[in-house]
Amino acid sequence: MTGGFRRDDLPTDEVERQVALYRPFTEAVRGLVDATIRTTVGDDEIRRAQAEIEAITARLQAQQLPGAFGVSYGADGRGRPWGNSVVGIRNPIAPPLVTEHHPSADGRVWCDFHLGAPYEGPPTLVHGGVLALVLDQMLGESAGAGGRPGMTGTLTLRYRQGTPLGDLRAEAWIDRTEGIKTWAKGHIIGPDGVTVEAEGVFILPKWAREKIAAGQAEETPKFFE
Amino acid sequence: MTGGFRRDDLPTDEVERQVALYRPFTEAVRGLVDATIRTTVGDDEIRRAQAEIEAITARLQAQQLPGAFGVSYGADGRGRPWGNSVVGIRNPIAPPLVTEHHPSADGRVWCDFHLGAPYEGPPTLVHGGVLALVLDQMLGESAGAGGRPGMTGTLTLRYRQGTPLGDLRAEAWIDRTEGIKTWAKGHIIGPDGVTVEAEGVFILPKWAREKIAAGQAEETPKFFE
Repeated sequence: MTGGFRRDDLPTDEVERQVALYRPFTEAVRGLVDATIRTTVGDDEIRRAQAEIEAITARLQAQQLPGAFGVSYGADGRGRPWGNSVVGIRNPIAPPLVTEHHPSADGRVWCDFHLGAPYEGPPTLVHGGVLALVLDQMLGESAGAGGRPGMTGTLTLRYRQGTPLGDLRAEAWIDRTEGIKTWAKGHIIGPDGVTVEAEGVFILPKWAREKIAAGQAEETPKFFE
Repeated sequence: MTGGFRRDDLPTDEVERQVALYRPFTEAVRGLVDATIRTTVGDDEIRRAQAEIEAITARLQAQQLPGAFGVSYGADGRGRPWGNSVVGIRNPIAPPLVTEHHPSADGRVWCDFHLGAPYEGPPTLVHGGVLALVLDQMLGESAGAGGRPGMTGTLTLRYRQGTPLGDLRAEAWIDRTEGIKTWAKGHIIGPDGVTVEAEGVFILPKWAREKIAAGQAEETPKFFE
């Protein structure tokens, strides 16, 4: 890939208008996803819901992007990864995580979030792979927050105990750096403490390095994971 | 946890009836998830869709399970993980993967699948964490297919190249075993070859070992990941 980022220079108020429109819409679809898994209503009600959902989908598809959402960004270089599987406010699969950080060299980021029925693996527990998904995102954001954006090179997860579905916290930070490589660490905290630990290496991709070398750094979004 | 599995002894024809009802229903919700991300229809249409979706959700919630789906199983001990984030046929978040295997000591499993807009990380590419999610499931199923079911202890991923959204293949197998530990390996194959390699350790949980020791092995589902 050589980018796939769309610079659209949307004015701030238009971004805010879109957030106000799409956030509750996507939240409604998240509610439907949860209900789809847990409902025990009769067969006729299921079939009726299916027909109605297919009709809504057809109306939404009347005008749509040719492919996946991608990442748009404006003059400040800040990406809007609205289709992202973890943080995308327009992606019903994303919980979505809303990460927080203060400016810091160690790129510390944190996030309180809730995982319900769609994220289950073993009964009552979060799927181990979903925790890997969350931690990949968190470690990548940590690298970006520390001014060292990159794509995942390696990721290692140590599962200490089962993680119950419900309210959770994730934290990540930069452990060390070397050239184009950034080592980030993080963990998930459940009601009984740390459940999973992660370490990963994040690497600035070649196309981004070339842009930076060519003095087009302002064209490179700060986040692309 | 001490299980969370429901033995319901559903007759085969009732299982088949439920699959025929819920599979297309969940597929319809997957279509809506994709359209939610990609639609560019007007604001009024978005608001109208939102209201209709909220109404459908309320009807489905009129009768529902108190929590997440869990895993049901019958006399043969085969689990029905229909809420699982990767393979759950009732979970709209799951692609879902349909894994295949022949009886073998090395637990080889494979799967051809498609990942679209909901699974995006960097633009046009699969989210690195989604690939970790898929591989965690595949390695776990491999351990189970080789008669060594277990929960993830550690998981290490090496990202060799970006994985484009689209048609993909996953493969996993048991590399070696030692006591209650099983080492499994696997990878994702894209149009240009292997994109991600994974290795993991899977461990039979204490509660399952106790059941087996007590001669209740037939009560232990073969898959619980």
